[in-house]
Amino acid sequence: MSVTFADVQSAAERLAGRSIVTPLIESPALNERLGARMLIKPETLQRVGAFKFRGAFNRLSRLSPAERKGGVVAFSSGNHAQGVALAARLLSLPCLIIMPSDAPKVKLEATRGYGAEVRFYDRATDDREALAAAAGAERGAVVVPAFDDPFIIAGQGTVGLEIAAQARSLGASIDLLLGPVGGGGLMSGVSLAMGALSPATQLYGVEPAGFDDTRRSLDAGERRGAPPAPRSLCDALESPMPGKLTFPILRDHLTGVLTVTDAEVAEAMRYAFATLKLVVEPGGAVALAALLAGKLDLAGRTAAIILSGANVDPELFSRVLAGDV
Amino acid sequence: MSVTFADVQSAAERLAGRSIVTPLIESPALNERLGARMLIKPETLQRVGAFKFRGAFNRLSRLSPAERKGGVVAFSSGNHAQGVALAARLLSLPCLIIMPSDAPKVKLEATRGYGAEVRFYDRATDDREALAAAAGAERGAVVVPAFDDPFIIAGQGTVGLEIAAQARSLGASIDLLLGPVGGGGLMSGVSLAMGALSPATQLYGVEPAGFDDTRRSLDAGERRGAPPAPRSLCDALESPMPGKLTFPILRDHLTGVLTVTDAEVAEAMRYAFATLKLVVEPGGAVALAALLAGKLDLAGRTAAIILSGANVDPELFSRVLAGDV
Repeated sequence: MSVTFADVQSAAERLAGRSIVTPLIESPALNERLGARMLIKPETLQRVGAFKFRGAFNRLSRLSPAERKGGVVAFSSGNHAQGVALAARLLSLPCLIIMPSDAPKVKLEATRGYGAEVRFYDRATDDREALAAAAGAERGAVVVPAFDDPFIIAGQGTVGLEIAAQARSLGASIDLLLGPVGGGGLMSGVSLAMGALSPATQLYGVEPAGFDDTRRSLDAGERRGAPPAPRSLCDALESPMPGKLTFPILRDHLTGVLTVTDAEVAEAMRYAFATLKLVVEPGGAVALAALLAGKLDLAGRTAAIILSGANVDPELFSRVLAGDV
Repeated sequence: MSVTFADVQSAAERLAGRSIVTPLIESPALNERLGARMLIKPETLQRVGAFKFRGAFNRLSRLSPAERKGGVVAFSSGNHAQGVALAARLLSLPCLIIMPSDAPKVKLEATRGYGAEVRFYDRATDDREALAAAAGAERGAVVVPAFDDPFIIAGQGTVGLEIAAQARSLGASIDLLLGPVGGGGLMSGVSLAMGALSPATQLYGVEPAGFDDTRRSLDAGERRGAPPAPRSLCDALESPMPGKLTFPILRDHLTGVLTVTDAEVAEAMRYAFATLKLVVEPGGAVALAALLAGKLDLAGRTAAIILSGANVDPELFSRVLAGDV
């Protein structure tokens, strides 16, 4: 079960007219700050406020008539939940989402707003995969994984298809592309697209401190978890280990993986507010955070970054603006 | 001294490669909420975070070699200040900005950041036009008005050029277009563009309560001020009267002028944060506010709105998010 560039192209056909072709925008202020030409892909403007709608819709659109009856089950801290919930609504499928009891309120409310049934689990004591599997069996529902699925990976890869096409129409050749890595669904899909369309582009994943399992896995040459860590500001990126499908793709394509601290992420969120005028959630801001923190030398180069999501509680956003985070 | 569509086209040539072609974006969530197809023009993503850069750069690019020596002077509560300051920096011109002492901090700091000299005036007691004229005479500098100038109007009109072209490429025909009115520079320029390129589009201006001078002037058939009002949340739209140049253009093109309250504006800012994921300042949110408040029947129609600016102090933004405004 491998995923190919053709799968990404096929996902793009499924998503045509369903997902938003988010723009590729430029900020002269950011260019000046970094001494580079920056191309910003704001998946914050995607349906549900995150790229996750792409993979979820692609996956759900492939269900057989028999599978459609039982609907879908997913577990997620929030963005995948919203993506699956909206895709299920658009495709008229029953949908159960299993969320941690401490998920951001904005993600919980949006998931319910799309008509999904929500059950909670305790992040500390429950096994969410077992809960999802049990709920799936009980309802005859298909469990939709957050990243380790060929259709999910291919759907997220359409972000890369769009970046490559939009950069071409700007006459830009992308030297580097950076995006967040949780389980690796986004960056493995983007790797397939860029590998085919822009093979000279260096690809970097960015992880939050304490959840650098992908960096550790790439160093080790095999899938590894990170040692248990306290929570990260980046609730969307707290995955324990790269996926079975995503890891080999990341291993074959990524030039490197960078790590950012909560403080660097908060600074990037403030920069996005004050200068880019975009709302970005913590996990969505890691690529920007890595560059603002000077983790790569960009002088004279062209770099693309993915701002992957914007679902952040207003209370937390205000604390970040106030510099309390 | 009249302004024509040809002036807008000429401004677009001056601005090519200087201003950002902001995208025209769609939000299925907003479409569903309003029962309409909405096309959103986020001039929040323009250089300096507001459309004002367009008019300012066009104006400053027309200075004669003799005029360039003395540089420019402008008075502004903030967005025009930033537009003039950045345009002056790009064109290597000396620049003095006269700002009210209570201007939003973010606007003051950005104006200084672009290298302009800043002097303050007292909103209650000083005559800012007289101050600007005196400073201009003293320095041999050209006074750059905020809206009542053919090059300023033509520059702002390029927003309309882009909307018309972008809507065409989406296959959309715009039934209505709404944008903010302070002195009327933006909507008079946009009127010239849309009048030429999309004459069937109904154009609406939107003003904040207490500063509905354009509505009163259109009702009276001649320029009128609004009775003295306390401050508005919309610091960018507190102009006392439509301009000599802008008024006849607005009179000939606008279907109507709507008025929104501070509470409606704050609600629109929260909606932009939570659903559109865009930072919008109070004055930039009035068109969205009018539609969310149901001031026009949109059922089944296609409407474009201009989000004109995003320069808002984080403290105020947080108070709005908290529902304290």
